[in-house]
Amino acid sequence: MKTADKPLLRALGGETLKHPPIWLMRQAGRYLPEYREVRTKAGAFLDLCYNPALATEVTLQPIRRFGFDAAILFSDILVVADALGQKVGFEEGRGPVLEALTTGKDLGKLSLDGFHEHLVPVYETIDRIKGALPPETALIGFAGAPWTVASYMIEGGSSRTFAKAKGWMHGRISDFAALVDLLVEATSQYLIRQVEAGAEVLQLFDSWAGALSHPDMRQFSLAPLRKIVANVHARHPEVPVILFPRGVGAGYLDFAVEEFAQGLGLDPGVPLEWARDHLQAHVCLQGNLDPQLLVIGGRGMGAGVARILHRLGKGPFIFNLGHGIVPETPPEHVAELVKLVRESAA
Amino acid sequence: MKTADKPLLRALGGETLKHPPIWLMRQAGRYLPEYREVRTKAGAFLDLCYNPALATEVTLQPIRRFGFDAAILFSDILVVADALGQKVGFEEGRGPVLEALTTGKDLGKLSLDGFHEHLVPVYETIDRIKGALPPETALIGFAGAPWTVASYMIEGGSSRTFAKAKGWMHGRISDFAALVDLLVEATSQYLIRQVEAGAEVLQLFDSWAGALSHPDMRQFSLAPLRKIVANVHARHPEVPVILFPRGVGAGYLDFAVEEFAQGLGLDPGVPLEWARDHLQAHVCLQGNLDPQLLVIGGRGMGAGVARILHRLGKGPFIFNLGHGIVPETPPEHVAELVKLVRESAA
Repeated sequence: MKTADKPLLRALGGETLKHPPIWLMRQAGRYLPEYREVRTKAGAFLDLCYNPALATEVTLQPIRRFGFDAAILFSDILVVADALGQKVGFEEGRGPVLEALTTGKDLGKLSLDGFHEHLVPVYETIDRIKGALPPETALIGFAGAPWTVASYMIEGGSSRTFAKAKGWMHGRISDFAALVDLLVEATSQYLIRQVEAGAEVLQLFDSWAGALSHPDMRQFSLAPLRKIVANVHARHPEVPVILFPRGVGAGYLDFAVEEFAQGLGLDPGVPLEWARDHLQAHVCLQGNLDPQLLVIGGRGMGAGVARILHRLGKGPFIFNLGHGIVPETPPEHVAELVKLVRESAA
Repeated sequence: MKTADKPLLRALGGETLKHPPIWLMRQAGRYLPEYREVRTKAGAFLDLCYNPALATEVTLQPIRRFGFDAAILFSDILVVADALGQKVGFEEGRGPVLEALTTGKDLGKLSLDGFHEHLVPVYETIDRIKGALPPETALIGFAGAPWTVASYMIEGGSSRTFAKAKGWMHGRISDFAALVDLLVEATSQYLIRQVEAGAEVLQLFDSWAGALSHPDMRQFSLAPLRKIVANVHARHPEVPVILFPRGVGAGYLDFAVEEFAQGLGLDPGVPLEWARDHLQAHVCLQGNLDPQLLVIGGRGMGAGVARILHRLGKGPFIFNLGHGIVPETPPEHVAELVKLVRESAA
């Protein structure tokens, strides 16, 4: 099968398919027993991300089990911070822990020197996955958006208020701009290399875009993403890019109407009729089942799936969740979901 | 000054004022040294809420300091759960802790018997505040929306995923409906009594509406709120109601176009031009400065304020934050904010 014939690529090219392609954010993860088995062997979480054999294995596990239309590279958005020279770790139950940037002087510790050398295992993982995928399955590479990655780098981890990151944004204006510029450059290079290693589609995760005011979102989520996509397309104009600016509400309009990306991931809160009427003419939509419905399964899940297919299935569309799979998800519900989508008539 | 002449009431009646009225969510709170002093005297947090003398004092503190156009009753949305018979506590740094409802049987422990007796101190607080307010200052009563309150009752506290509450919503469908119905009834009665004690405006906080998928939001946030407002207006048609369904994105359209409430609170993510063009013809808007800009102050805050006034000041509008004041806020920034809004020319 030629790349362009894969269902995911056809949808991103603007085609309306009889059954939308399906993949799920965080489809390789803790809800799968075979993942947990590999995970215990791998040491620290980042060791798994940097181990091409094991990262390839966990990327392929959900493809074998469920036959998704796309595999997504197993990695983490914070490898970019790590490769720039900031210490990144992951603690059980707490998530990422970074040695936080505190002043502009700390930016001096970050550098693009050695960036790609650090990320060679990721590129090798992509190459291995590509060689092992079924012909109809697309390979998605990804990165975090500058705002989301910067927030972790400044906060030192997750945050409810983003007080420090917003403090930089509005109080250390030139330092924050320098950090975002560095992330735009690093992320662009990283994604270009992912394409050259075999990624056929790219997704940019801006998980915390919804924490920004609308003017800040335009300046620090939308604008840097536009630059990254332009950089990638300057080298690889054929590679579709999916943006996932989670939680931006009516701000989704900004991402859609500018038409610089081919796909737009919707969180569960996005009204489906509104998305169909205002976004889908501009971009292939992706989403947006509530991950908790996948945990619950049964009629609740069935009704949610039917509603999404009915509203969005008559235009370019990729079925997905509105956020990542949670660890409590029963794998048999995932199998049922794939069946529902594949047997649907839009 | 007659009630109808107060700036807040005029804006909610659809008037465009030269300078919008201003109040701030959580304006009585930990950022004020005089609040912290009272707080240490009061014992547990709920003891403060149920102490008419002290609750009146902390309600009035920000009015004395800043001359806001409205005072908002000092209380907590979880007094409704407490008054229905569920044990509610607050732990330092952790927030509310409830003895969670685990099965439908636990609903039997909740009852409207003794509900108002439990809340007598709240009604007395309103009466006292009313007697002490300057003539131009409106008094806002409030309650939590059924979805948000139900989520605390089922989760036993804050949640990131709302796994248990959504588990009830889609798995224990009739139990969840019974809980929401009980909360609709209790909240309606509670708000009616607040009006009869002296509240001139009511605000309903649906802080976690943004965690719901759009269909669930319509069913479990919007519909119960519509019922509550209808119940209140059946008794007190003249009392304006402000809804604050935080994080609903394009779902704000649903709340505006149905025109059952007089005010709509916007979170910081709502695009201002979009709100002006699609919402403001239906309802008086309120919001939406990022609370972190109030912490940062200076030019960042000034620019944020100017932008909001420019976009929303030409229609019915109440200046506010997009979420509550955070404890780190310097009180002098609040004074500066009030000055900026009062000296503005829209």
